[in-house]
Amino acid sequence: MLNFTIGPVMSNEKVREIGSKQVPYFRTPEFSELMLESEDLMKKLLNAPEDSRCVFITGSGTASMEAIVMNGFNKDDKVLIVNGGGFGQRFVELCQLHEIPYESIDLEISKDITEDILKNYENKGFTGFLVNIHETSTGVHYNLDLISEFCKNNNIFLVVDAISSFLADEVDMSKNNLDVVITGSQKALACPPGVSIIALSPKAIAKIEKNNCKSMYLDLKNALKNGERGQTPFTPAVGILIQINARLNEIFENGGVESETEKIKTIAEDFRSQIKDLPFEITSNSLSNAVTPLHPTTASADDIFNILKDEYDIWICPNGGDLKDTLFRVGHIGDLTINDNNQLIEALKDMQKRNLI
Amino acid sequence: MLNFTIGPVMSNEKVREIGSKQVPYFRTPEFSELMLESEDLMKKLLNAPEDSRCVFITGSGTASMEAIVMNGFNKDDKVLIVNGGGFGQRFVELCQLHEIPYESIDLEISKDITEDILKNYENKGFTGFLVNIHETSTGVHYNLDLISEFCKNNNIFLVVDAISSFLADEVDMSKNNLDVVITGSQKALACPPGVSIIALSPKAIAKIEKNNCKSMYLDLKNALKNGERGQTPFTPAVGILIQINARLNEIFENGGVESETEKIKTIAEDFRSQIKDLPFEITSNSLSNAVTPLHPTTASADDIFNILKDEYDIWICPNGGDLKDTLFRVGHIGDLTINDNNQLIEALKDMQKRNLI
Repeated sequence: MLNFTIGPVMSNEKVREIGSKQVPYFRTPEFSELMLESEDLMKKLLNAPEDSRCVFITGSGTASMEAIVMNGFNKDDKVLIVNGGGFGQRFVELCQLHEIPYESIDLEISKDITEDILKNYENKGFTGFLVNIHETSTGVHYNLDLISEFCKNNNIFLVVDAISSFLADEVDMSKNNLDVVITGSQKALACPPGVSIIALSPKAIAKIEKNNCKSMYLDLKNALKNGERGQTPFTPAVGILIQINARLNEIFENGGVESETEKIKTIAEDFRSQIKDLPFEITSNSLSNAVTPLHPTTASADDIFNILKDEYDIWICPNGGDLKDTLFRVGHIGDLTINDNNQLIEALKDMQKRNLI
Repeated sequence: MLNFTIGPVMSNEKVREIGSKQVPYFRTPEFSELMLESEDLMKKLLNAPEDSRCVFITGSGTASMEAIVMNGFNKDDKVLIVNGGGFGQRFVELCQLHEIPYESIDLEISKDITEDILKNYENKGFTGFLVNIHETSTGVHYNLDLISEFCKNNNIFLVVDAISSFLADEVDMSKNNLDVVITGSQKALACPPGVSIIALSPKAIAKIEKNNCKSMYLDLKNALKNGERGQTPFTPAVGILIQINARLNEIFENGGVESETEKIKTIAEDFRSQIKDLPFEITSNSLSNAVTPLHPTTASADDIFNILKDEYDIWICPNGGDLKDTLFRVGHIGDLTINDNNQLIEALKDMQKRNLI
């Protein structure tokens, strides 16, 4: 199957070869060294300020979103959430559940945030800002420079969920004063799902150290403490962590974060240039390199997903809920090539010939 | 490396081959079907009562221990915890953290529970019982029949963490009136770590449905609801779930749970018969088939671990904390053979010849 979803994505041979090996015992100096190297490489990829840290959570991106809400904030905070889709809504629900005071900026579906919108929230006593910088559910990549500037001017602690954006778009902790960045193993890192990663600035670490967290599994103080010696508090997904380490090293061997982002951008632009004659509308006014969200004008999005899966051995990414029939997404992350794009375009053109779209 | 730890353990070729394949997209009927089959097979292996359910949590065994404490109990409960080692202590800390009223039975290290001890807790209004049936840290397999009888007589909700005991020792939900059983991917299931599994009796499901859980990631109501259609609320460790499915099918092809337990028992008994002339004392008075805990009488346990690792390419399982120098453990789960036992014994006899033990 050719996989154009937004996770799990396709892994290269090196990563898959590690998957075929025995998983080693991990309470050893050898594994600690590997983890400390991964932390260091992650920090470099994010251009994290000195004394930043990264922790590796065995769990989905949501586990890390919840960990940050629980560890980073409390009842004395007032958090602003960008809510333009499924993942923004998840941050809203997490703040409700954990009783963190919040307001949400409810954006129109598929629309970016603007200076005019942010103006309404100036000097309102917000202490935190939560944003899924690429709202993966609708493929909107929010303007990070704008958000960063707003947070700087208002002295607000900025948490960026970059789960599907990391490596696909610029995510620079130093340049944009990011206090927290979240990502996952199964997006542009192109490893199997099971691990999410949280990068923390020195300010974030200090905030977490002062806060109480009512979860053992998601306690970041404990993760930070164990991480000092390259370990995790509980048995992690050791195999996936070794795959992540290999990918991180490979990214540097291939020229670092800029080369990786450029590769994904090239795949995305090639795909976008090839769909001009197909009955699809790009729905987002601010695209990430990671994904193209498409509204099919002549057929149901869900039918297109199913036909590609069952008749062409290709996965694209379906949407759920209200968007099920009107929106599908094509991912550009993972071990994809221009040739893979060509195969997808051929399949879509064949469907057009068959009057299915 | 030959791996005699208690997780991650060695996986067979079939499981590792799946690790070498691309991880598929999972919001599909194909993956749902696989998950529903896994749930069904797990229930059969546990002899779970009709209308029981199993949920698959991407996380360590501790994630599932915490999920059960958070979802299964509240301030109106009064829980009795068997605390005879590191994992019993973890249940104590989870109840403290989540403010669940509890008492702990603090057992002497390496000792089983007895009828006399349990008598002290009769008719004391306990509503729940938490036990790590195989206290993996010290290799003590508690008397499940005794505990089960006590809970039945006192109408107590019984939660059994069988993380390292499942498949190695008898864990029969119907026979022993178990309400909850926890296990993990990286023990006798012999898959990579990253997934833990919670089996729930109808009584457990009803208790959870009535309770509030202040975690999104560990919310079992949500996991149960998504599981009805063979899905998980958040992106799971898809690759490991496919490996688990393959192993579950394989166990049935090889004769079911009895054959699997017999295989592990044979490996354990062979090892125990072969160490008679070595300067080791078995420290537990009630052994699981999963592991043999050993006190070396002539050398430091930690030194033995390091020498076997660095000079013989063999991992045994070290202990941490107070037991670091006095106790090590040899596991009998995973893809091990009698021949592997022979290799370990040869290495130990060689160390004896070298006066290292």
